[in-house]
Amino acid sequence: MGTVQSFRALCDRPKNTYVRVSLPAVCFVWQIAMIILFGIFIRYDPESDAHWQDYRKRNNISSDIENDFYYRYPSFQDVHVMIFVGFGFLMTFLKRYSFGAVGFNFLVAAFAIQWALLMQGWFHSLDYTDGKIKIGIENLINADFCAASCLIAYGAVLGKVSPVQLLVMTLFEVTLYAVEEYIILNLIHAKDAGGSMVIHTFGAYFGLTVSWMLYRPNLDQSSRLQGSVYHSDVFAMIGTLFLWMFWPSFNSAISDHGDGQQRAAINTYLSLAASVLTAAAISSVCQKHGKLDMVHIQNSTLAGGVAVGTAAEFMLMPYGSLIVGFCCGIISTLGYVYLTPLLEKYLKIHDTCGIHNLHAMPGVIGGIVGAVTAASATDSVYSTEGLAAMFNPNGYFESVIPSRQGGLQAAGLCVALCFGLGGGIIVGFILRLPIWGDPADDNCYDDETYWEVPEDEESIPPILQYNNHMRNTDLTESNFTMDQHSR
Amino acid sequence: MGTVQSFRALCDRPKNTYVRVSLPAVCFVWQIAMIILFGIFIRYDPESDAHWQDYRKRNNISSDIENDFYYRYPSFQDVHVMIFVGFGFLMTFLKRYSFGAVGFNFLVAAFAIQWALLMQGWFHSLDYTDGKIKIGIENLINADFCAASCLIAYGAVLGKVSPVQLLVMTLFEVTLYAVEEYIILNLIHAKDAGGSMVIHTFGAYFGLTVSWMLYRPNLDQSSRLQGSVYHSDVFAMIGTLFLWMFWPSFNSAISDHGDGQQRAAINTYLSLAASVLTAAAISSVCQKHGKLDMVHIQNSTLAGGVAVGTAAEFMLMPYGSLIVGFCCGIISTLGYVYLTPLLEKYLKIHDTCGIHNLHAMPGVIGGIVGAVTAASATDSVYSTEGLAAMFNPNGYFESVIPSRQGGLQAAGLCVALCFGLGGGIIVGFILRLPIWGDPADDNCYDDETYWEVPEDEESIPPILQYNNHMRNTDLTESNFTMDQHSR
Amino acid sequence: MGTVQSFRALCDRPKNTYVRVSLPAVCFVWQIAMIILFGIFIRYDPESDAHWQDYRKRNNISSDIENDFYYRYPSFQDVHVMIFVGFGFLMTFLKRYSFGAVGFNFLVAAFAIQWALLMQGWFHSLDYTDGKIKIGIENLINADFCAASCLIAYGAVLGKVSPVQLLVMTLFEVTLYAVEEYIILNLIHAKDAGGSMVIHTFGAYFGLTVSWMLYRPNLDQSSRLQGSVYHSDVFAMIGTLFLWMFWPSFNSAISDHGDGQQRAAINTYLSLAASVLTAAAISSVCQKHGKLDMVHIQNSTLAGGVAVGTAAEFMLMPYGSLIVGFCCGIISTLGYVYLTPLLEKYLKIHDTCGIHNLHAMPGVIGGIVGAVTAASATDSVYSTEGLAAMFNPNGYFESVIPSRQGGLQAAGLCVALCFGLGGGIIVGFILRLPIWGDPADDNCYDDETYWEVPEDEESIPPILQYNNHMRNTDLTESNFTMDQHSR
Repeated sequence: MGTVQSFRALCDRPKNTYVRVSLPAVCFVWQIAMIILFGIFIRYDPESDAHWQDYRKRNNISSDIENDFYYRYPSFQDVHVMIFVGFGFLMTFLKRYSFGAVGFNFLVAAFAIQWALLMQGWFHSLDYTDGKIKIGIENLINADFCAASCLIAYGAVLGKVSPVQLLVMTLFEVTLYAVEEYIILNLIHAKDAGGSMVIHTFGAYFGLTVSWMLYRPNLDQSSRLQGSVYHSDVFAMIGTLFLWMFWPSFNSAISDHGDGQQRAAINTYLSLAASVLTAAAISSVCQKHGKLDMVHIQNSTLAGGVAVGTAAEFMLMPYGSLIVGFCCGIISTLGYVYLTPLLEKYLKIHDTCGIHNLHAMPGVIGGIVGAVTAASATDSVYSTEGLAAMFNPNGYFESVIPSRQGGLQAAGLCVALCFGLGGGIIVGFILRLPIWGDPADDNCYDDETYWEVPEDEESIPPILQYNNHMRNTDLTESNFTMDQHSR
Repeated sequence: MGTVQSFRALCDRPKNTYVRVSLPAVCFVWQIAMIILFGIFIRYDPESDAHWQDYRKRNNISSDIENDFYYRYPSFQDVHVMIFVGFGFLMTFLKRYSFGAVGFNFLVAAFAIQWALLMQGWFHSLDYTDGKIKIGIENLINADFCAASCLIAYGAVLGKVSPVQLLVMTLFEVTLYAVEEYIILNLIHAKDAGGSMVIHTFGAYFGLTVSWMLYRPNLDQSSRLQGSVYHSDVFAMIGTLFLWMFWPSFNSAISDHGDGQQRAAINTYLSLAASVLTAAAISSVCQKHGKLDMVHIQNSTLAGGVAVGTAAEFMLMPYGSLIVGFCCGIISTLGYVYLTPLLEKYLKIHDTCGIHNLHAMPGVIGGIVGAVTAASATDSVYSTEGLAAMFNPNGYFESVIPSRQGGLQAAGLCVALCFGLGGGIIVGFILRLPIWGDPADDNCYDDETYWEVPEDEESIPPILQYNNHMRNTDLTESNFTMDQHSR
Repeated sequence: MGTVQSFRALCDRPKNTYVRVSLPAVCFVWQIAMIILFGIFIRYDPESDAHWQDYRKRNNISSDIENDFYYRYPSFQDVHVMIFVGFGFLMTFLKRYSFGAVGFNFLVAAFAIQWALLMQGWFHSLDYTDGKIKIGIENLINADFCAASCLIAYGAVLGKVSPVQLLVMTLFEVTLYAVEEYIILNLIHAKDAGGSMVIHTFGAYFGLTVSWMLYRPNLDQSSRLQGSVYHSDVFAMIGTLFLWMFWPSFNSAISDHGDGQQRAAINTYLSLAASVLTAAAISSVCQKHGKLDMVHIQNSTLAGGVAVGTAAEFMLMPYGSLIVGFCCGIISTLGYVYLTPLLEKYLKIHDTCGIHNLHAMPGVIGGIVGAVTAASATDSVYSTEGLAAMFNPNGYFESVIPSRQGGLQAAGLCVALCFGLGGGIIVGFILRLPIWGDPADDNCYDDETYWEVPEDEESIPPILQYNNHMRNTDLTESNFTMDQHSR
């Protein structure tokens, strides 16, 4: 790691300006590549193609309302909000990194969904008759899911990387995600509608490993910027609440039509409600004066949604969902209080947003819950037909054996873990190259590094501030200050 | 009331820390109770159960899209946003109580929806064959509705109570709500799809009565925190707009499939639009210089949605909806200007958010509008079939008599009022016990009381502020300040 | 223009208070007019009328889920969010005009949707049997679309006009919009599901022309308020993201059931993703240090949605959508960097939000893309039936001739341009009358002019600020300051 340290020693301010070449280059080259690959490979699926009416008649679909669009579009839009507003604003808690949180989240997700449509398409939606990927609304949802796992990983390195590093990380993570997803869902035949394993476990351990590879021993040089301010915590609650409210859509977006989607929504709704109460309880009991900590309310309240991801569409039962949320609210909050400091101190893993508490642990719990629930499935609870529809939809097995399904779920969890850890190490090495314009240790968590930041009362010493106030009551002078920001 | 005054005299700072025991205790005990009761009573209904395919065939339901999920889920998610973001952010207007507004709103609602599923389930969804409550998407919507009435009540006591008091208040209010709802809808057979009576009238008068019981004569000791600051008013607009935009979903969420839902959405859309214009007009005319007041724009613009709640699914006619919104925008704004100060001065009711103007008066108007509209219903307007479907869906009456229905609506309104006033007195007495850790008079409207608040430029005197600014331009020192907030 | 200058010289502070009469008068008179006109003309359409069940049987509609409500309501709510939160918050970037941005946006849109229901109804939904306008969910969407074009125009004059001027502008713009829309869609038979021409081109050129007519040579007197502050840029991102996320709903809201809606959503989703990457690339490359500019991220990332509006429902192909987004992200960002200053310097057009870059240019491009895509439509791509359903739904032509359709699309674009420019000149003249209480040049971009603004640490000189801070730590004094803001 010494070599890298010396590399990093070179990463001082001048290097940051380097993104003026690298960032546009990466954006242009990759976007042009997307256009070419989409031109070669991607077409509309029968339900979004102008031939839909023929297709409808051929398959005696009685009405346009049977188009998959009407089953999935409302959930899709909710998931879309979670990706761009939910994850974006959840990360705005830092006092001077809100532009980076929302803006880079936006940039990363916009690239991830395009690349995911291709990668996932090759594995899942390739039409072998003409070698084209046929996309519909469900592909858009899956692309958003893949973007989610990239944004989870971003949470671990928030404020410590450059936008170029983020885009490189995303390029590789999406690729790994598509392979891992294919192995877990199509080869192992595990079920994971809400992605506890595929999205959260993989994304979180990937991000944590990358953060470990990029460990900065002198990060305390920018610790003045590592906290929140009052309004930044309120902005972060926008992210928290949109994630929390729309999580039922996240877990039900691609589950079976009819009862599957409704059950997934109910289970997620209940699990989330339970984790709010336990997160608040632990947050209060862990503080000297019993005061609540916004960090816990912003994050641990969501743990229930992560942990119920795999089992949401199963017959988990309403009380089962409450138990899952109950436990994860506790574990996640305790993680913030006790585990995060230890991870940094002993394992040299700095986890800016605490994704280990919000995604990694709940994700693993979710995988285990899924395995146990699947293993204990019975004909009486599901009905023979329901059991087959749930665990053997495309008739791969000649019969459903719950215990075997439980094993497959467990195997899926292991695959997600291995891809997260292994992939993180490889990608971490790549990101340690001193060519990505990452910030110096005393420049982390600072929007000034990559953004034109408006002059602000809050960010300048009182004497200037005084002049500022004068300017605010003066009608003729100092027009220059804002010119670069005026439209 | 004297005894309580002396009790309250004891409620000083040390008492606040008391929530470190009481808050976690309440959260844990109640959440565990929920798990047990859900385990005993709550199961999936046929449309969310894995047996759905059998059920579909037995009832010749032609397609999965006929599952109630697809009729109600989009509205449900909109209602969910209103509860957690709408009500939460609407209350962030206070300069230093945004954490409490959004955070306690979150906590209260998360508990209310669980308890409501049980209470409403016992009254509405109990399957007598096996003694279980069968829940589906409609139950989730009704639980959110019940939470809404609790959050309305919270608006009256915002900033003056402890989270423990809020949870206790919610426990009792949900219980009363379920009984009141059962009497109005199932015994009296009144209609109230948007809850003008059941949700708004009850919730508002309950909250106002509680606030009267908890009256603080020396509240001016914290009046320095009673106003808004520029950004807190912008945050509050997030709440206002999400409530305003999604109100059509609120009023149509549980109305009849087909025309009922569409008509409810149209009527609400129109009523809300009208109240925006009249609220702005009155706001301007009541100010010395004709300037608009954010308080009115944030609140009175919503009055039209409250007042059209009962009649939204009726044949109110588009112009009828506009008239309702027109009047309520005026009444609500005038209430803020003239009535709220009088309520405090003469009736000793301190109403932090002005719920009397936003929910109580419009709610009563909504009940009256519903009664009049129902009483004037005719076969020609509704068609015989439509009239029966609207006012006699389960064939309880052998025929629909509009005048009688009008009477039933009026009776329902009275029940809501009585439950609100009576329940508020009882619960108010309980909340006056000096064991709930409520804040001292000079600690109200202050997040410092129950939250770990980050150090902030805005909240510290200039001399410290100076050091702060130095810290912002200094790279090595004083890392301690934010440590408790860094992840 | 000299006379107007002298008029304007008279518009000093006392004049602003004038809105105390004019604003309430306009709101009341127009709202009462709406009620009367709605009473005379507007009724429910068959799908929202209580006679729906008869209608269903007569037309053998198999199920309630076939009610248009379930095809369009989720998209409607998304569009509604774009109008009120999207446009409203997008304009909050100015440091002291957030109340005006969100509040006037709210007021204008609430009036526009009512007036649009009437104007569009007379042209599109008039039932000649009884002379009534029959409205359903699709009318609400179209009314929101019309409001969008008014809010686009508001972007050009943001901060420089009074609320009365805005309402007058909206009255005329909605009227012109309805005529222009009727000519383009019903007489010329051009297609424009997402409104690149009808909404964006028209609205943007209308607003720019009005801004040109209202040009203020001495606007630099308020340039101290023309920039953003840190938090106002974060608020603006709320608007950006909700516009960006819900744009697929905007472009698919009124397109054909089934494949049409799904295809429109997919194309818009892809085009928007591409413009994010190119906007970021150009933003970085145009800054001296390669830093990103929030102005570009807030606006140019949306250009792809505008430009794909017309062609979204066509068989544009996924790669086609990416190409459109790719180009518009570049053009829009370059517009902010180079064109906006030139427009002001040479053409005397001051464009506060840069709508020329976000709506005008992408809108024109969208019209051209639509014409080209239509002209190159083939039977093999659409299927004969699909081609007819797309370009000749009501059988106006005896056969579809793509080249002719391309010509019609181009003609439609010209009509939109002419109406925008011509209408803007006429309305601009009206708005130059010195009776609307518009702000003086040194009062622009300042909420103090039309809003009761709370006292704020940020807006007062340090000496008062010191007292403020003292007040924050003092429990008994100076309660008066916030009284006007306490509920």
